[in-house]
Amino acid sequence: MSEKALHYIKDNRERLLGKLNEFLAIPSVSTDSQYKDDVHSAADFIVTYLTDINFDKVEKQETNGHPLVYAEYNGAGMDAPTVLFYGHYDVQPVDPIDLWDSDPFKPEVRDGRLFARGSSDDKGQVFMHLAVFEAYMKTEGAIPINVKVCIEGEEEIGSENLYDILHEKKEQFQADFAVISDSGMAEKNQPTILYGLKGFTGIEITVNGPDHDLHSGMYGGAVRNPIMALSHILASMKNENEVVTVDGFYDDVEPLTDAERKLMEQAPGEDFLETTGIPETVSEEGYTAKEHTMGRPTFEINGIYGGYQGEGTKTIIPSSATAKITCRLVPGQDPEKVQKLLEDHVNNVVPTGVTVDVKKEKLSAKAYKVEPTHPLIKKAASSYTKAFGKETVYLRMGGSIPVVEWIEAIYDIPIVLLGFGTPDDRLHSPNESFPLDSFDKGMETLVYYWDEVKK
Amino acid sequence: MSEKALHYIKDNRERLLGKLNEFLAIPSVSTDSQYKDDVHSAADFIVTYLTDINFDKVEKQETNGHPLVYAEYNGAGMDAPTVLFYGHYDVQPVDPIDLWDSDPFKPEVRDGRLFARGSSDDKGQVFMHLAVFEAYMKTEGAIPINVKVCIEGEEEIGSENLYDILHEKKEQFQADFAVISDSGMAEKNQPTILYGLKGFTGIEITVNGPDHDLHSGMYGGAVRNPIMALSHILASMKNENEVVTVDGFYDDVEPLTDAERKLMEQAPGEDFLETTGIPETVSEEGYTAKEHTMGRPTFEINGIYGGYQGEGTKTIIPSSATAKITCRLVPGQDPEKVQKLLEDHVNNVVPTGVTVDVKKEKLSAKAYKVEPTHPLIKKAASSYTKAFGKETVYLRMGGSIPVVEWIEAIYDIPIVLLGFGTPDDRLHSPNESFPLDSFDKGMETLVYYWDEVKK
Repeated sequence: MSEKALHYIKDNRERLLGKLNEFLAIPSVSTDSQYKDDVHSAADFIVTYLTDINFDKVEKQETNGHPLVYAEYNGAGMDAPTVLFYGHYDVQPVDPIDLWDSDPFKPEVRDGRLFARGSSDDKGQVFMHLAVFEAYMKTEGAIPINVKVCIEGEEEIGSENLYDILHEKKEQFQADFAVISDSGMAEKNQPTILYGLKGFTGIEITVNGPDHDLHSGMYGGAVRNPIMALSHILASMKNENEVVTVDGFYDDVEPLTDAERKLMEQAPGEDFLETTGIPETVSEEGYTAKEHTMGRPTFEINGIYGGYQGEGTKTIIPSSATAKITCRLVPGQDPEKVQKLLEDHVNNVVPTGVTVDVKKEKLSAKAYKVEPTHPLIKKAASSYTKAFGKETVYLRMGGSIPVVEWIEAIYDIPIVLLGFGTPDDRLHSPNESFPLDSFDKGMETLVYYWDEVKK
Repeated sequence: MSEKALHYIKDNRERLLGKLNEFLAIPSVSTDSQYKDDVHSAADFIVTYLTDINFDKVEKQETNGHPLVYAEYNGAGMDAPTVLFYGHYDVQPVDPIDLWDSDPFKPEVRDGRLFARGSSDDKGQVFMHLAVFEAYMKTEGAIPINVKVCIEGEEEIGSENLYDILHEKKEQFQADFAVISDSGMAEKNQPTILYGLKGFTGIEITVNGPDHDLHSGMYGGAVRNPIMALSHILASMKNENEVVTVDGFYDDVEPLTDAERKLMEQAPGEDFLETTGIPETVSEEGYTAKEHTMGRPTFEINGIYGGYQGEGTKTIIPSSATAKITCRLVPGQDPEKVQKLLEDHVNNVVPTGVTVDVKKEKLSAKAYKVEPTHPLIKKAASSYTKAFGKETVYLRMGGSIPVVEWIEAIYDIPIVLLGFGTPDDRLHSPNESFPLDSFDKGMETLVYYWDEVKK
């Protein structure tokens, strides 16, 4: 049955790519309210697409923030399984804009890659699903399985409203399993099953000193410098061996088994030095970089600011300084508990002469792990292999998709992560791109997968 | 002879204040090229002013940056001394603009203070000199001494071109002594002679990690975080007892004598907690806050930035992080040597996995000290006392005026610092202001001083 759909995708490849480019050209930046209308346009694009291919109950559901697109396909009948397909159509901001080699919202193909914000994360991958649904509908008049579509516009700002909706509309969204394509492969054209994802939590630390910026000559020597105070606090949280020095941070971490460590070491992976330009990798004492990224918790300062940032010199003692911190968690760790440990640590090391505010990241998530032997996972692996002509590898990875934890917790269903991104995609960075190979073979994989799942 | 000039100032007070407001209304922000024309307008204001009161050789001297206003008054004759009067007409940027209670460039009087950027630093004080010259010229047709005026437009960006000009035009600028009004009094209406100023140097540290911002989930655990690396570097430079932990930093510091420590303790000073809102002062172990601000070197981080600074969360490992550091130095310390010590320290503590650039602040200055018993200082003290009705106190202060060191080094003449600012003026901060008491009594002081100096 999948042959016709496969041909459809090949025959319509340029048109589908053009359609994806239309989708990518909409600057659906969810963090920035000036793009509100564009975010709506991106949702409308999906609504129109699904309506055109005869999905049912296609709705742009309004939320307290950006809308969510919901739709159903029930044509596979009562005996066929129902998949909840999740994705997101919002994208990260594009700054620093001057580091882009082409306009982030004018998709451009260079060296077999499609360059545009969202090409990999996640509009490109969402679109592949839409195109495969279209291929089945236009060739067979039917999709092998029933589908519930859930494509949100707030993933890049924490999916806050989705969290409530998943709870409130439990009956509407209930399915037999979920499929998400918002992740990557170990390397280009290497079929990869993610069987583990990290959890996530964070805090924002603001050190408050004087109530206004002070002249460093008049007050230097009497006033605690908030940036220096913040530096001391941050330096006390992770040492130069990349070990987090917050009391209790590692207490509940499930240790890596020897088998897993071996799997990680053998797993294909990117050359970190080549893709990032760093002179050497660093990782937690006692663990390799691969083990740390895949299987150990991490602690990162994502941003810092305080005082004068312009050119030249401004001789002030600034009134405050702020750092944004997020942690990636592994199975065993409880996000709220870790967040509390971080907060307590900060409060315990605040020096005299300043006060500190700790803001807790509202949305945290536990780590996720699924058994690689589950039939839905096995079928995914074989579909990948058919499309890419290569054995599938099984990986735990360092990213977090909070929605994965929520779906698991609320719906208690297996979740299959069918990702087609690659390590070179530069997610969240300037010059985000997506390989056309992933676009083509990824759609093939999906065609095979729906066919497999039906059996 | 000074009586008529004194009356002139009082009779014309509102007109003079209005004229000052015109001067303050020009946004002569030297750091920001978009204000280039305004910087020129501020120079033109002074040129017109000095021309109108019949100064000679009034020139707007072009430099490689903003212009310098030069003028002479030679009417006091060969026997009278010649003063080099230095000031600056440029001002600091106004950001954060939303913290101002009134427009920084629409001067407004509230509670006996004139609020405007530059009201205290230094346009207000420069204008007082112009007004006193006017008073003498309009009443006596002459000023008691000869004057060389040097008012620059680049003080807030380091006076780089002035440094060259002072060397190149040595003959033109040579005088018997110099007077500068770009400093403050120990407290409002408290005549104060600054007999010591701190020197100054600085570095900017940039930690470079990956060549683009990285997804913290994919790379966290393999890549050194530049912000964390910078925090470790900064935390290693000053400890929580406010002692600079850079090897050799204190080596050449002239120790405070017991007499000086006593003088500092007795000196009137502001209530740091009240004027800054901090919960408690902090100072170098073994020294009081007064001793540290007045007589010990300081180390301040003036600004820091790296990674994501917007609202909410962006889960990246940033590609770089930067901190701006300046030090205030005391007699004995050599700025270049200190700068080298800072640079060496940073290079010695750079962790693996990142590289560091250290940019050296180009313009450094040694500390300045003059004997309080010098006749020109004694005359200044008595002029202050006549105007303010209070004994003059002698202070060393924490600020630096590089031009003071340059004039001393190049011209080898005594320098008298006649400052009228107060601790509440909020220099370089939102809501800068200047007390009208200082405006009125400061001009009186100058009238008396020129009269005294002539004798």
